[in-house]
Amino acid sequence: MAEPNPPHSLYTIPDFQFAGGVRKKINIAYRSINPTSTKGTVLILTCYGGHINTTLTFTTGALKDYHVVVVAMIGNGESSSPSNDPDFPKDYSLRYEDCINAQYALLTRHLGVERLETVVGFSMGGQQAYYWAVMHGVGATPFVKRAVVICSSAKTSGHNYAFLEGPVSALRASGDYYGGRYRENGVKPLGGLRAFGRAYAAWLTSAEWFRLELWRVLGAGSLHEWLEMEVRSSEEWDAEDLIVLARMWQKGDVGAVGGGGDWKAALGKVEAKVLVMPCVSDQYFLAAEGEREVECLKNGRYEPIASVWGHMAGGGACEEDTRFMDERIGRFLSEE
Amino acid sequence: MAEPNPPHSLYTIPDFQFAGGVRKKINIAYRSINPTSTKGTVLILTCYGGHINTTLTFTTGALKDYHVVVVAMIGNGESSSPSNDPDFPKDYSLRYEDCINAQYALLTRHLGVERLETVVGFSMGGQQAYYWAVMHGVGATPFVKRAVVICSSAKTSGHNYAFLEGPVSALRASGDYYGGRYRENGVKPLGGLRAFGRAYAAWLTSAEWFRLELWRVLGAGSLHEWLEMEVRSSEEWDAEDLIVLARMWQKGDVGAVGGGGDWKAALGKVEAKVLVMPCVSDQYFLAAEGEREVECLKNGRYEPIASVWGHMAGGGACEEDTRFMDERIGRFLSEE
Repeated sequence: MAEPNPPHSLYTIPDFQFAGGVRKKINIAYRSINPTSTKGTVLILTCYGGHINTTLTFTTGALKDYHVVVVAMIGNGESSSPSNDPDFPKDYSLRYEDCINAQYALLTRHLGVERLETVVGFSMGGQQAYYWAVMHGVGATPFVKRAVVICSSAKTSGHNYAFLEGPVSALRASGDYYGGRYRENGVKPLGGLRAFGRAYAAWLTSAEWFRLELWRVLGAGSLHEWLEMEVRSSEEWDAEDLIVLARMWQKGDVGAVGGGGDWKAALGKVEAKVLVMPCVSDQYFLAAEGEREVECLKNGRYEPIASVWGHMAGGGACEEDTRFMDERIGRFLSEE
Repeated sequence: MAEPNPPHSLYTIPDFQFAGGVRKKINIAYRSINPTSTKGTVLILTCYGGHINTTLTFTTGALKDYHVVVVAMIGNGESSSPSNDPDFPKDYSLRYEDCINAQYALLTRHLGVERLETVVGFSMGGQQAYYWAVMHGVGATPFVKRAVVICSSAKTSGHNYAFLEGPVSALRASGDYYGGRYRENGVKPLGGLRAFGRAYAAWLTSAEWFRLELWRVLGAGSLHEWLEMEVRSSEEWDAEDLIVLARMWQKGDVGAVGGGGDWKAALGKVEAKVLVMPCVSDQYFLAAEGEREVECLKNGRYEPIASVWGHMAGGGACEEDTRFMDERIGRFLSEE
């Protein structure tokens, strides 16, 4: 077994061109697992609140024989982010295409990858997977053969946008966030991060999950204890990293990189096979959205996760759901 | 037609006993409409964010021939509340039974009402209606003959509890809330109230409502404009009033006033007829909860509102839904 938290590697791009206009040096954090595999390479992308070593769900299952590259999205605190780069663009102009461009450079210029068997992403990782499919999954022999999109969407819905306004506004209004100048004051805005966590928590799973008190499965003895667990995990984050990522999420729309602005047309040009796996009880990436996306794709497949774990189902929170996803991903990869 | 905002009346109870222990003078704000009616008296209760004159939905429809008493729940800024009473209990111990006890005193000691044809309430008003049914809708000839419960619940669910933690935490963490001492500093915590509004907004309707951009029906030209409308309406409130009410809502449980702590047993003793009208797309008072409640009631009837307006359907936001509710309430009242 691998050690619990092996260090990640950094790939430096000296003159990275951001979609928002800035050109500067960035670092991309990644882990390359099983690089001598002859089965081909798979790319895994991180989610909101995710780090490289919390994004290994399928690496010991359906993906275990592949060369797996796990990449931290820009802004997550491992790749270049406000928290580790004082010159990081301050106007919240980071976009998914920046992440994909940097990941593509890492794969092709540094790791010598010529083709991806699949990209796999959950939540914001799934949105990156959709961007990958639109940007590099088109044409006769696309760089990306397949994409696995778990609890995500090709375009962030108005409802999803509005939900994110809640935790972000809670953080930004907090006294200790101090209008974004908390770092220069040497203060971690714990009050704001805690409010962020509380404004986020009720969205994570589902009403039925709460009714069944499934926080018990996560080791909480009461609802209050579970809320406190969520709050503590928010405290570990950097406030600006959270906001930069939330703003990118809110702007998520594959129409920005294909289809002339129309996300449906963008999906319609994708040749890569796409496995779309929403969770039926997800409160913000609705399963109905996934169905509509599959209707637009040439080679889409809809495999909903039947679970009361809501969005968290896709993050590997429930063993049974994880087994289901792993089995479907394995089957998807075995098909030509 | 009535003038747009006729003044409400105040009924003073000099020695009101709060469930939390305090005994003090309180004022109950109310409007008595059509008091000479011979059809009987109907009681309407306010919701979160509601005032007497925004709670008249059915008074010109199904209830127009009745003597209608609209009462502001304690804490709403019209009846005794932190915002208008410096001695209001500061420990967030206000409970629904306090509201019902004060309303009962108003009706029986001041207005001479001997029986209610029905109580009607939406959201927190619906929770009050359930408390009325459990406290005064039992026995052979109950004081309350009927209750109409719209988009509400007999016991606040864990999910509903967790959702409320979001806006409340956003408000409490804000710099200008100042640990609750904003009033003594002569400051209205606008930053906190705005964050509260943003953390609340995505819950109000439904994902499908956002997809169909039904904010247009409310006069907003964009999602941002609608969010700003919601934020402005939050700005009008007093922060402590909002928190006192949210804490009462979170503690909502008819088991506190009947059934020996068990909400199902409490409902099982109700003789009053109860019309339970959840909205099928309500994100926090789920229709499935309403179904479970009706199973516990001797004389319950389940009439869900088939609408994409979510919780707001019950508040009269959509004309078609309001017509449906009005028609069902009229039919419910016409039955013996």
